[in-house]
Amino acid sequence: MSPSHGPSPVPAADIVVFGGTGDLAVRKLLPALYLRDRDGQLPPTTRIVATSRAGLDEDGYRDKIRGDLPAFVRPEELDDAVLTRFIARLTHVSLDIADDDSWPALARELPDAEKVRVFYLAIAPSLFGTVSEQLDRHGMVTPQSRLVLEKPLGHDLASALAINDAVGAVFEEQQIFRIDHYLGKESVQNLLVTRFANTFLEPLWNATSVDHVQITAAESLGVGSRGGYYDGSGALRDMVQNHLLQLLCLVAMEPPTYVGRETVRDEKLKVLQALKPITGTDVDDHVVAGQYQAGLAQGAAVASYREDAERPGSVTETFVAIKAEVQNWRWAGVPFYLRTGKRMEERCSEIVIQFRSVPHPMFPDAEGTSEPNRLVIQLQPEEGMKLHLTAKEPGPGGIRLRPVSLDLNYAQTFQKHSPEAYERLLMDVVRGNPTLFMRRDEVEAAWRWIEPIHERWARPEHAPRRYPAGTSGPFAATTLIERDGRSWHE
Amino acid sequence: MSPSHGPSPVPAADIVVFGGTGDLAVRKLLPALYLRDRDGQLPPTTRIVATSRAGLDEDGYRDKIRGDLPAFVRPEELDDAVLTRFIARLTHVSLDIADDDSWPALARELPDAEKVRVFYLAIAPSLFGTVSEQLDRHGMVTPQSRLVLEKPLGHDLASALAINDAVGAVFEEQQIFRIDHYLGKESVQNLLVTRFANTFLEPLWNATSVDHVQITAAESLGVGSRGGYYDGSGALRDMVQNHLLQLLCLVAMEPPTYVGRETVRDEKLKVLQALKPITGTDVDDHVVAGQYQAGLAQGAAVASYREDAERPGSVTETFVAIKAEVQNWRWAGVPFYLRTGKRMEERCSEIVIQFRSVPHPMFPDAEGTSEPNRLVIQLQPEEGMKLHLTAKEPGPGGIRLRPVSLDLNYAQTFQKHSPEAYERLLMDVVRGNPTLFMRRDEVEAAWRWIEPIHERWARPEHAPRRYPAGTSGPFAATTLIERDGRSWHE
Repeated sequence: MSPSHGPSPVPAADIVVFGGTGDLAVRKLLPALYLRDRDGQLPPTTRIVATSRAGLDEDGYRDKIRGDLPAFVRPEELDDAVLTRFIARLTHVSLDIADDDSWPALARELPDAEKVRVFYLAIAPSLFGTVSEQLDRHGMVTPQSRLVLEKPLGHDLASALAINDAVGAVFEEQQIFRIDHYLGKESVQNLLVTRFANTFLEPLWNATSVDHVQITAAESLGVGSRGGYYDGSGALRDMVQNHLLQLLCLVAMEPPTYVGRETVRDEKLKVLQALKPITGTDVDDHVVAGQYQAGLAQGAAVASYREDAERPGSVTETFVAIKAEVQNWRWAGVPFYLRTGKRMEERCSEIVIQFRSVPHPMFPDAEGTSEPNRLVIQLQPEEGMKLHLTAKEPGPGGIRLRPVSLDLNYAQTFQKHSPEAYERLLMDVVRGNPTLFMRRDEVEAAWRWIEPIHERWARPEHAPRRYPAGTSGPFAATTLIERDGRSWHE
Repeated sequence: MSPSHGPSPVPAADIVVFGGTGDLAVRKLLPALYLRDRDGQLPPTTRIVATSRAGLDEDGYRDKIRGDLPAFVRPEELDDAVLTRFIARLTHVSLDIADDDSWPALARELPDAEKVRVFYLAIAPSLFGTVSEQLDRHGMVTPQSRLVLEKPLGHDLASALAINDAVGAVFEEQQIFRIDHYLGKESVQNLLVTRFANTFLEPLWNATSVDHVQITAAESLGVGSRGGYYDGSGALRDMVQNHLLQLLCLVAMEPPTYVGRETVRDEKLKVLQALKPITGTDVDDHVVAGQYQAGLAQGAAVASYREDAERPGSVTETFVAIKAEVQNWRWAGVPFYLRTGKRMEERCSEIVIQFRSVPHPMFPDAEGTSEPNRLVIQLQPEEGMKLHLTAKEPGPGGIRLRPVSLDLNYAQTFQKHSPEAYERLLMDVVRGNPTLFMRRDEVEAAWRWIEPIHERWARPEHAPRRYPAGTSGPFAATTLIERDGRSWHE
């Protein structure tokens, strides 16, 4: 199956990247834009204006990116002619955000008020409000402007409200694109198509047929050089509040009237509002925090989180497991087990829909057993979908039951590399399509659900459970699911 | 996935093959028994007694089979040591069925009354009654005896009743194994496992979710040298009355209490009894008969049926398409389209469960369309199962719907050759397991449903529609399904 069309066109845009020399811009955003240029999706007049405090002129910045970019795309994707064309789109403005006098230089780079403008804030969230005010003060916010915010959107409900208020004072909500790169993954988007462009799943998609749901985002890496930021955040803020809850919403949501700009976000919000609050001592029963100790990762000895982060007494969690529940008609009584951690056995992100066991054993004389059916949506390291079922093993008489799977592997099926999440999401920003971005009320509802857990953990006696690096997390996470007679999908 | 066990053991048996020098014995039965021997499934004392009117002694028959058999197994399955062991199991008795005096010689080959005895009647159905009587008269029918009957089991209800009465006067019903090799196919047996060892299909398996069912058995070959037999039979008797109706039963049947000896047959019978009768002028609307004309098959010019069969004025049908209906709670209003033919475009046997279309278009902005989901169970030429669904084509923004399939290919999944239907069914006979064989009441119910169609066709003005060899049958068969807004799965 080869695609029959080129990429859908997007309008020409001026894309302003705040933090233009930072890691996110250099490793993710500019390579994503380069690849879109390579596929012919950027009109000739699309320009990219990087800002930073680095004293670079246009040539200096272009030289830097020409040198840096090849390390962040695959060799077969490098094309000198395209790279030259792409580099010519770049310019750089030296900007001190707090200094009024440095802003007119940016405004001069945006002469066309009718052209789509993207302001991508690849900078600290504490600056989101100030940047918005400055853009407004210097007359750069047009009807065709979009603001892109990177996580973390606050560290609790109050700070999220403050950020949302500050940017909301300048931009309309529909101009604000809160990015969650998990939502840009093919397999996550395909979940919507699988659910709503097919009829075979919907009759099964409820408490009558589903036993439980597991959502896992396991990383094999440690906290690396992010220790400074991470220690003030932890896995619950860094992964659960955004990525895992967003995936849960896409799994659990009711069918919208159609899949459109606000309709999907309306339905996701309803799921967040239906999440049973976990408060007080319930936190101890339904949530497990963990912190990795020294151990082995892919055969090599690695240090503990406290050593990695240089925080000797830290109680920041690098692992969370949660038993959540969506209190509505469809999902009553179906546990949603969420799990994320650093320094886990392997990198693996997936959603598992486990269906109920057969109600009655129909093959009393068979060898083998009938495993419960599972639909597995794989996000990392490979994207794909598998339906695990029981089949008859071929043989000369008698019946032997064997687990098999019906597989959809993206790379094999479509014979091409799926665009990275950032490529897709950046094009959606330019198009002004917010379907895959978090709306203000969603972010706030997620914080509202997370906050009582943090409150419980704020007690002095709280300490995350220890788990050796390179394992599947603390023992208590296994207990969390196994006391329900279930087990984590490995 | 490699199998963890050898084949399930079967008891030692004396296997008597009537028609031991005939096509069925030489091409199918003896190769099947050889392959079971090769897999270690035949105990050392299992013996095979062939009977025929050929004046062969034991050595003569052994020489014949040693010479013939290699042509009917695959080269990699040939093993000299196994072949020698297998040939030593063989003996031959010259038998004139009508001649009382020739039977004691057979009785002498069956000295052990406690041993399992299989009488396999690979001979004309008109002899089934006589053979049964002779076996009884000569004291060969023991409690451990099983009688295997090959199709055709009569050519109408009356003749089927006569055969069943005659063999039933000697053998208990549970000793009679009416073989239908379609039921021995892995993919057909796996249909039972797929339905009843999994939970994902049962909620979909009804008129609410299923739009219609198609059952196709298309052959690319013509009538070949079977013209003499075939002209008195036709596709309705030869394929629909047995194979296609049996497949329909397995698709449509209610879950039995468990999958066991009589329980599955009880449920299949209920389906046959629930088939809406097609009588009188309804036959003209719901059934299409066809006969192949000269045409092209796999690029070569081929003759018409009348030439192949040497029956210039024949109105025997080589193609049938039927729109059937199962009148019960589960399937009310769901058409079951059956289709079989000779000299079709390609050899292809499959069951297609087509689910309903999405009730509402959820992706108004998407390119492409959402095809109805289909579960396809492939019987020939390859055995397998495919779930056709709609997925999102990977791409940078926007949604493109594309048909994809989740596949289970038997050979790939299980990394071994599936035993042929006859191998499995013969072992089931020795074990005394009748689950996959047709019970008397099933055969009679099938004839009862078929008969009014033949009655209508008996009118002098009846003539099958013409279709060129190498095509998908007469145009009227396309009309049969397309007037319902549906189309044959190609």
